[in-house]
Amino acid sequence: MVRFGLFGCGRIGRMHADTIAAHPRAELRMVYDVVPAAAEAVAGRHGCVAATEVDQLLESGEVDAVLIASSTDTHVDLITRSAKAGKAILCEKPIDLDIARVDACRDEIAPHKPILQLGFNRRFDPSFKAVQAGLAQGEIGKLELLVITSRDPGPPPAAYIKVSGGLFRDMMIHDFDLARFMLGEDPVAVSAMASVLVEPEIGRLGDVDSAMVTMKAASGALVHINCSRRAVYGYDQRLEAFGERGMLQVDNRRATTVRRYAADGTDTRDSLLDFFIERYAEAYTAELDAFIDAIEKGTPVPVGFEDGRRALILADAALQALKTGTTIDLKWE
Amino acid sequence: MVRFGLFGCGRIGRMHADTIAAHPRAELRMVYDVVPAAAEAVAGRHGCVAATEVDQLLESGEVDAVLIASSTDTHVDLITRSAKAGKAILCEKPIDLDIARVDACRDEIAPHKPILQLGFNRRFDPSFKAVQAGLAQGEIGKLELLVITSRDPGPPPAAYIKVSGGLFRDMMIHDFDLARFMLGEDPVAVSAMASVLVEPEIGRLGDVDSAMVTMKAASGALVHINCSRRAVYGYDQRLEAFGERGMLQVDNRRATTVRRYAADGTDTRDSLLDFFIERYAEAYTAELDAFIDAIEKGTPVPVGFEDGRRALILADAALQALKTGTTIDLKWE
Amino acid sequence: MVRFGLFGCGRIGRMHADTIAAHPRAELRMVYDVVPAAAEAVAGRHGCVAATEVDQLLESGEVDAVLIASSTDTHVDLITRSAKAGKAILCEKPIDLDIARVDACRDEIAPHKPILQLGFNRRFDPSFKAVQAGLAQGEIGKLELLVITSRDPGPPPAAYIKVSGGLFRDMMIHDFDLARFMLGEDPVAVSAMASVLVEPEIGRLGDVDSAMVTMKAASGALVHINCSRRAVYGYDQRLEAFGERGMLQVDNRRATTVRRYAADGTDTRDSLLDFFIERYAEAYTAELDAFIDAIEKGTPVPVGFEDGRRALILADAALQALKTGTTIDLKWE
Amino acid sequence: MVRFGLFGCGRIGRMHADTIAAHPRAELRMVYDVVPAAAEAVAGRHGCVAATEVDQLLESGEVDAVLIASSTDTHVDLITRSAKAGKAILCEKPIDLDIARVDACRDEIAPHKPILQLGFNRRFDPSFKAVQAGLAQGEIGKLELLVITSRDPGPPPAAYIKVSGGLFRDMMIHDFDLARFMLGEDPVAVSAMASVLVEPEIGRLGDVDSAMVTMKAASGALVHINCSRRAVYGYDQRLEAFGERGMLQVDNRRATTVRRYAADGTDTRDSLLDFFIERYAEAYTAELDAFIDAIEKGTPVPVGFEDGRRALILADAALQALKTGTTIDLKWE
Repeated sequence: MVRFGLFGCGRIGRMHADTIAAHPRAELRMVYDVVPAAAEAVAGRHGCVAATEVDQLLESGEVDAVLIASSTDTHVDLITRSAKAGKAILCEKPIDLDIARVDACRDEIAPHKPILQLGFNRRFDPSFKAVQAGLAQGEIGKLELLVITSRDPGPPPAAYIKVSGGLFRDMMIHDFDLARFMLGEDPVAVSAMASVLVEPEIGRLGDVDSAMVTMKAASGALVHINCSRRAVYGYDQRLEAFGERGMLQVDNRRATTVRRYAADGTDTRDSLLDFFIERYAEAYTAELDAFIDAIEKGTPVPVGFEDGRRALILADAALQALKTGTTIDLKWE
Repeated sequence: MVRFGLFGCGRIGRMHADTIAAHPRAELRMVYDVVPAAAEAVAGRHGCVAATEVDQLLESGEVDAVLIASSTDTHVDLITRSAKAGKAILCEKPIDLDIARVDACRDEIAPHKPILQLGFNRRFDPSFKAVQAGLAQGEIGKLELLVITSRDPGPPPAAYIKVSGGLFRDMMIHDFDLARFMLGEDPVAVSAMASVLVEPEIGRLGDVDSAMVTMKAASGALVHINCSRRAVYGYDQRLEAFGERGMLQVDNRRATTVRRYAADGTDTRDSLLDFFIERYAEAYTAELDAFIDAIEKGTPVPVGFEDGRRALILADAALQALKTGTTIDLKWE
Repeated sequence: MVRFGLFGCGRIGRMHADTIAAHPRAELRMVYDVVPAAAEAVAGRHGCVAATEVDQLLESGEVDAVLIASSTDTHVDLITRSAKAGKAILCEKPIDLDIARVDACRDEIAPHKPILQLGFNRRFDPSFKAVQAGLAQGEIGKLELLVITSRDPGPPPAAYIKVSGGLFRDMMIHDFDLARFMLGEDPVAVSAMASVLVEPEIGRLGDVDSAMVTMKAASGALVHINCSRRAVYGYDQRLEAFGERGMLQVDNRRATTVRRYAADGTDTRDSLLDFFIERYAEAYTAELDAFIDAIEKGTPVPVGFEDGRRALILADAALQALKTGTTIDLKWE
Repeated sequence: MVRFGLFGCGRIGRMHADTIAAHPRAELRMVYDVVPAAAEAVAGRHGCVAATEVDQLLESGEVDAVLIASSTDTHVDLITRSAKAGKAILCEKPIDLDIARVDACRDEIAPHKPILQLGFNRRFDPSFKAVQAGLAQGEIGKLELLVITSRDPGPPPAAYIKVSGGLFRDMMIHDFDLARFMLGEDPVAVSAMASVLVEPEIGRLGDVDSAMVTMKAASGALVHINCSRRAVYGYDQRLEAFGERGMLQVDNRRATTVRRYAADGTDTRDSLLDFFIERYAEAYTAELDAFIDAIEKGTPVPVGFEDGRRALILADAALQALKTGTTIDLKWE
């Protein structure tokens, strides 16, 4: 039984609290939020303690592991302090928006060798996992083309856009990680095009809302990612892996399997599951499973600090490619 | 090159005229219809002769084979005269609505040993053929359950209902033949339920418009057929063959492969192809191919007089089952 | 918070124990099984008491509601005693295999007016519910044809067949209830055909393993149900509701949305979810929700004693139809 | 009735000969090929004249229109001579591999104002046409993302690669035209990445066999195209148009609608139709229809010389983008 402390009691924090509470090998012992009332609400719901300070949680002796679901700008500080306190760490993506801070964090926590897992939920989705397993087992031979579709149901509020780091670092970062997961190697070249088509305010804030990125791996495999901040038909999360002996596709999920036939159309299915909390419900549980296994059984975490760092490097490269109109070449040490 | 004479220049006759004209091994030489203007129109379109009498066509020496697409009540007479005239015969279903007349026809033409193929178009549809081939090759092992869906886009006019022989003999007769084609054996028991749900006038004429039939073969295989005279989403023609090692399904055909996603539904496809002339366009050409092969190469016709006779016996049994509320047992000599 | 006692700690009992334990408004307080070790295992897993007698559970004062998941032959006794003890009752289907015992039970519990819900899981499945809601809202107008497919992944052991009441009372009873749920009325005529195709031992025990039933409602709507005790591709649970303005279909569920393309076939999906515990996982939770609502909020139970009784009457009618080869007419008081 | 002369009696020429012969408003009168035996074979099959020289065909007075299906390097010469001879011209894509020659041809034929249609078959495919019509009617509002998948079943022989102009000018040129068709405007920026993954010989000849291109239109709409010279599961031709109010997809075509269920997978469909002659059979007929309409009714050709020229400019830009690793900006006069 792993005893958890939770940092961050917003929407995603509350979802993680529920997932921990429902997990047979986990207990939620303490929660913290900069807004005390938010922490108290979660503590009340799950019968645990609302810490009033970060250190109260880290020093209580009641907690084996922390789940960091607070705002991005607090991640590096909480990771560092938790690592120093000897806690196992499950941190929501991204590590940070600034690669220099990420690198510094990496160096600072290195001596503590924390069990640190990053919350790239797609890696734990049964469908994406099955495709990755198929690729790893050579089901379609050499991977040649990878096409990732990633569209949110609707744009976030302007306040979020301002602190999000932009589409590439906030949203497409999931797809950069997913591409690395499928490729089994790192892209070595990145190009990008983007537009403001959905919400002019996003453009005024210096960001884009529609984007296409192309990447190439050392093996020659080519990757396409397209993102939009708005899909009226729901949260659109697909992938297509094409190789020398076939193709594997991940389709979207829907609440039911109903198909409707009417005079003006046939085979109509539900809108797509909306949004990440519904779409990746199973993934969040599997993510927690893997983290608890890492703590209890010593298995390696399936996605770690370096994965978060590399996804950010790809996002930064895409942004640079977009600004310069050139392909950015990457060297990985 | 096979020289054809055509009896019947209505809707289905005109379709057959086009199919013959477009076929590389067929020529349309002469056409006949009780309405001379109808015959002349087809003759004009295809540059051939409009016969003014049946015998003109049969005795001209210009014709190797006849295609009978006239009204059902003329089939037995035209089959008999064509057989006596030594013509190869491709006759639209059904042979007749009266099994006694069918049996008499069988006996009368027997000495002439005509090449006689019956127009059960479903046997020539690429999808139904592929499923039958899969069954014959043991793809799903022993066939256990067969489910046939057969729904017309809309009810025929009352005038047609009056002479059609009713839903079982006119419409479901295709499905009785399809069941025999898939089973590779004859049903030995038939039960039926039916309703008037679509068009009250059909009920006033003594017929039904919605029906379900169950049959059992000597092997124990069970068959379900359901028919409706109206499907607002198009001509619905499906089949599902279930067996010890799997299942084979035939889905409907649509004009395009487009899928539509909108705020209120996803994956919406076109209405179904409507009606038989569109749905079975490929089948009509394949049917003609097989008939020409029988004439030119001596291959057996894939569906013959006895198939038409047995389908009618099944339709009659279903009608009797409906009237008596009992399962009708059949013995085949 | 509703405090539960559980009767029966076999496979389905253990599943219900997990569902109760995970439910935010339910607590599992006491469990009973004729095999004490089975009760102790579940009690140990969920930290509750293993009762050694039925009355210990009913008289403890620790339990507001009972969930009956013991063998079918104990249902009537446990329902009766629980009703007399003033407990709310959630009972797995069927009530009993003998309609006389069911009727007697109905009369005996009537004075106690228990909250009694029956475990017809399909009514709580999101897809079946959505179709029923669509029908109730007139989405396809008048319901005309209903086709239900219901195939288990593999046959049960002979020991189970002996006490199951046979395919119609044990397996197809779900489909009789599902038909009533969709029709919104009772069938008034039933016919049946069946075979032993899967497992000869089933035949030696006097049962069938493959069956087709047809029913007709007073409205004229026609219903087809087909069952098999074995589908190699997984647990096959589908439904098609056809009406004057369209059609609604429920397709199967799979573990992932992956589609595979290879040289010998395209669009290949996973096997179907296998078996009812996986397929109806969401339904079991929704079933419990509705039951707790009935207790806490006084809402009517969505499926009650009379529904269980009528499903059994239909199963008995199907069996009689099969034996006599006639359509059985039903009168409902 | 339009009288046709055909230049080129190879695989695609023979297909066009069949299409012309089967068309009710067309007649094949004369054919020419640099290999006289090829011309004679086609002439024999269709009962027409095999010309021994180009001018024999152009000067015969027997021909109203020419269909140019000879090798790419002959197109400009044949277009020019046919235009001067006053013939209507239906020319297979591409016009030429050299934009300078294309421009010169344009200027030379301008005074003759020929009816000239280019053979971009995708524009005539029922599914692509339906999506373009949907876009034009605003079905999904403003078009924002366009994703085109274009994969051949297998690589062409080395001899063809040498004269093809490379993947971008030979194969992806269809997709450049398709993008323009869907966008309703011209791309203004092009980037590309590519690899040799399928066939090393293709790399030795200086070409690539796997490629991804991104384009941007003045409206901000983004386009992705991916091509491979080999898809083991058949000829893969798909499109996805995403916009502010929804999405339209074109899926592939298969020979049947059969779905297969077995112990190791469900819903398996046929391989894709292979190759362009099968996949675009309907399109070739519709293409001929439109051309004949242009001749007989004076309707505008749906795809003309300038469309071919612009597709080539895009292919050249993609090649330049690939070589320089930069986004190429395009200005259209």
